Amino acid sequence: MNQPDLHDMARRLRVIEDELAIRGLAARFTDAVNERNRDAFRQLWAEDAVWEIGPPLSHIAKGVDAIVDMFDELLKPRTLFVQMTHSGVVEFTGENTALARFTERERGRGPKDYYENLAVYRDEFIRTADGWRFKRRYYDYRYLDMSAFPGEVIPLPGNHSAVHEG
Amino acid sequence: MNQPDLHDMARRLRVIEDELAIRGLAARFTDAVNERNRDAFRQLWAEDAVWEIGPPLSHIAKGVDAIVDMFDELLKPRTLFVQMTHSGVVEFTGENTALARFTERERGRGPKDYYENLAVYRDEFIRTADGWRFKRRYYDYRYLDMSAFPGEVIPLPGNHSAVHEG
Amino acid sequence: MNQPDLHDMARRLRVIEDELAIRGLAARFTDAVNERNRDAFRQLWAEDAVWEIGPPLSHIAKGVDAIVDMFDELLKPRTLFVQMTHSGVVEFTGENTALARFTERERGRGPKDYYENLAVYRDEFIRTADGWRFKRRYYDYRYLDMSAFPGEVIPLPGNHSAVHEG
Repeated sequence: MNQPDLHDMARRLRVIEDELAIRGLAARFTDAVNERNRDAFRQLWAEDAVWEIGPPLSHIAKGVDAIVDMFDELLKPRTLFVQMTHSGVVEFTGENTALARFTERERGRGPKDYYENLAVYRDEFIRTADGWRFKRRYYDYRYLDMSAFPGEVIPLPGNHSAVHEG
Repeated sequence: MNQPDLHDMARRLRVIEDELAIRGLAARFTDAVNERNRDAFRQLWAEDAVWEIGPPLSHIAKGVDAIVDMFDELLKPRTLFVQMTHSGVVEFTGENTALARFTERERGRGPKDYYENLAVYRDEFIRTADGWRFKRRYYDYRYLDMSAFPGEVIPLPGNHSAVHEG
Repeated sequence: MNQPDLHDMARRLRVIEDELAIRGLAARFTDAVNERNRDAFRQLWAEDAVWEIGPPLSHIAKGVDAIVDMFDELLKPRTLFVQMTHSGVVEFTGENTALARFTERERGRGPKDYYENLAVYRDEFIRTADGWRFKRRYYDYRYLDMSAFPGEVIPLPGNHSAVHEG
């Protein structure tokens, strides 16, 4: 039996860690949205990142401060907002850059609106000194239903609600 | 090129295995529910684990025998019950303990009831002599709709139905 | 501190790569469906693979050419078709073979039909000279609703639509 190549193993270990980190970033995004944790949300982005939501409900924020403001703006009016992230594909485009697509579904309810959709997040990632971060997320709607739906909203307890009330 | 540090590589490999085992445990839970496989379900829990479903449909079971009884009690009346586990986040709190949150959706139908919800599973894990196990799962509802829905239920074939018929 | 066993580490690294490749294959399937990318879809299958959709909407294709034809046939009439792949379980049955089950949901709309379902993909995988491929996928419906639903379909832009236009 040949001796395994240690340098090859180190490289493959790094590839696995990178893939898990990128998948983990998309999962942490969804968790921060669903837990309404703006501090956790802020940490996911490169300083000059862009977060864009496509038509028909277009929004765009450039830079991490604007991104966190948009997070507040989108979540605050809604007593219910749950994002569901399904499977995704990741492609490395260099040592420190990657692309991904994740299949998404969201359901929300505010004082005057209902919101149910299907979409694809089209993502760009960059490896920074602190690890992988979103460089750009684009929410590409495939289906949008704003008609009323029944059911009971169970809001997060106060101690989970980290949304800035400033 | 420096020689890779073998001890560091062994540690990082262990971290990856641990993360995949914990994510795998949540996936095996959903599979056991959807396949109605009580024997597979039993194997996921520490002996003294707690499985709790929060309000407004509160249930709690303490210890693996009570947990399997609750599994039967919840599934038996329903011809349809499908759990959907989306992305989740995992945090290690020690060498042998971890926390996680997974975004969930369920749809069920019984002889008299309809059931559609969104929730977050708040989990605690422990590493036992046999590997990682649930120490506690708490199903934290965010949305619950018990109004009737249309559509056809296609029950599992008999050979998949491992639910105890005691 | 003992020296880590290099052969054992190489084996464990391979197990992780295999699991991620198999999970990645299911994710690439969903991505190819949602992006309508028939060329990406073709690459997922062993030459003699079988793709079967169970009752009540039974379809079967044997061999990769028939599989790609079935992909076109199912997607072309529908302006909306989004597949959601949730968590899954993977089991290795040999050095080069594996089984898996993934919890699925789909929503589609054609000129005359509506389509919403829950299902389990029951999968067989084989390791080929080019990596892991589907040997068989069986879509096992658990719930099917063909009643009309509201909401707006947002079609993919033309440049994403890689479906063969004959």
